[in-house]
Amino acid sequence: MILTVTLNTALDITYHVRTLRPHGSHRVSEVTERPGGKGLNVGRVLAALGHEVTVTGFTGGATGRAVRDQLAGTAGVVDALVPVQGSTRRTIAVVDTTTGDTTQLNEPGPAITPAEWSAFQETYERLLRSASAVALCGSLPPGVPVGAYAQLIRTARASAVPVLLDTSGEPLRRGVAARPDIVKPNAEELAELTGSHDPSQATRSARRRGAHTVVASLGAEGLLAENAAGRWRAAPPRRVHGNPTGAGDSAVAGLLSGLVEDLPWPERLARAVALSAATVLAPAAGEFDHAAYEALAGQVAVTSEASAA
Amino acid sequence: MILTVTLNTALDITYHVRTLRPHGSHRVSEVTERPGGKGLNVGRVLAALGHEVTVTGFTGGATGRAVRDQLAGTAGVVDALVPVQGSTRRTIAVVDTTTGDTTQLNEPGPAITPAEWSAFQETYERLLRSASAVALCGSLPPGVPVGAYAQLIRTARASAVPVLLDTSGEPLRRGVAARPDIVKPNAEELAELTGSHDPSQATRSARRRGAHTVVASLGAEGLLAENAAGRWRAAPPRRVHGNPTGAGDSAVAGLLSGLVEDLPWPERLARAVALSAATVLAPAAGEFDHAAYEALAGQVAVTSEASAA
Repeated sequence: MILTVTLNTALDITYHVRTLRPHGSHRVSEVTERPGGKGLNVGRVLAALGHEVTVTGFTGGATGRAVRDQLAGTAGVVDALVPVQGSTRRTIAVVDTTTGDTTQLNEPGPAITPAEWSAFQETYERLLRSASAVALCGSLPPGVPVGAYAQLIRTARASAVPVLLDTSGEPLRRGVAARPDIVKPNAEELAELTGSHDPSQATRSARRRGAHTVVASLGAEGLLAENAAGRWRAAPPRRVHGNPTGAGDSAVAGLLSGLVEDLPWPERLARAVALSAATVLAPAAGEFDHAAYEALAGQVAVTSEASAA
Repeated sequence: MILTVTLNTALDITYHVRTLRPHGSHRVSEVTERPGGKGLNVGRVLAALGHEVTVTGFTGGATGRAVRDQLAGTAGVVDALVPVQGSTRRTIAVVDTTTGDTTQLNEPGPAITPAEWSAFQETYERLLRSASAVALCGSLPPGVPVGAYAQLIRTARASAVPVLLDTSGEPLRRGVAARPDIVKPNAEELAELTGSHDPSQATRSARRRGAHTVVASLGAEGLLAENAAGRWRAAPPRRVHGNPTGAGDSAVAGLLSGLVEDLPWPERLARAVALSAATVLAPAAGEFDHAAYEALAGQVAVTSEASAA
């Protein structure tokens, strides 16, 4: 199975209001809830692609129960979340129905105790024994050491399980130094990591810092990837319009599924770009449009570039 | 005991953000949760005043469990909420820490089935047998008939239990016609009910529509009350500054406690005004400052006016 780790799981709530007015009072016309946090999103997409997936991380409180209740109804996803005393955070996306613009409110997440962090590490080591790949995704909740991902990467490498890291800031910086197989920063995260706003330079710099393969997601322009074997750009056949929520998580799912199927890199990237675009096109945030994915999969242009490394 | 009815209970969530910016992304620095809905607030204040209180209404889902868990920790409040299939609504107050201004997002509440409404009515009739007074508070969730309060008022009157109504719009209009002992509209609700923006005229008009006593809450100016025995104005000794959330619910608690203690009307109004002002002064929304209440209780000016009725 493929393992995804979401240390800061979330209950993702979407509200529809006519127009958000600061300091006003709003009746919410529509409420939707779904399990959130990047690793859970990646897991859902992998399951939809037919892979066996186990999700782990932390969950707690009434919001955590709501997350687990909904996961229980998701075919192909095994729940191996570790219970904690605190409450799983909520994220609230307030969508203006007049314009489609979204305002985001993100809770910080529960405080994790040292005992809970230890319990998670034991679960993680046990799950790695049957994992063909692992993805470490998203932000860290309060109380988890900032070097957490670096530690989890070393454990995965010691178990010979390929590991993908998708996070930002200091956890990304420390994680990259632990030599993960793949990192998938977006342009902003990559710039923050390397100090360079030039994606080509920054990708190279991130490799020098320790990542074997760097896959930079450049929004509508697609992906830029580099490793010891080469350097590629993968772009969707046309600019797609829609809701980009979850597009990055779908790209991670594409990369992981290509990894466990042992596809050549250009095919992995094509799949990741097609899934990403099909997610932007889906009516519900974070879902992907299966028909669009099938149609786009053959149309992604992957070009090999001369590597300056 | 005193019974309070909250058909649309809520999990009241408060978020602190620096400044709410439409279409921006915000990290929430502080999250607080407490049981909400007017009747639950009234019940909490009554319990703090030393009264035995039973709260009923509907509750469901993960949010309903969170409400019940917190109620279980509230001394003096007995939980007689009726479980439903849907989920208790959330209300979200987003407080800008820079200015203290608040943006409110209110979910609509769960859809109540006819069977659930029947189950509630049975519970209500049973609870009325040991009630010395009942308060019917707040909005109706979807599925509950708009004449619900009128029906509950007739049931209370048939059981000879004095009934106070605190709602708005069409449920208030229909409820008033069922001749409740007390209605406590604010200026806006009273104007909507009667078509008059003059509180004196509107209070008189609301009595003609069926309410025995009308207590209009006029914000910082205090209360205006009228019934067959007289007409009074009750005002705080000075303008108080703070968070008015829950001030109206504290006024209801003051009126109810005065009713079951059989206080003369001027004393009931003085208590309601003092509790209301002490709620505005409390640091946490919806709590009241006990010391301020004790100090203010003797300082409320109640003046009798000539009734034109």
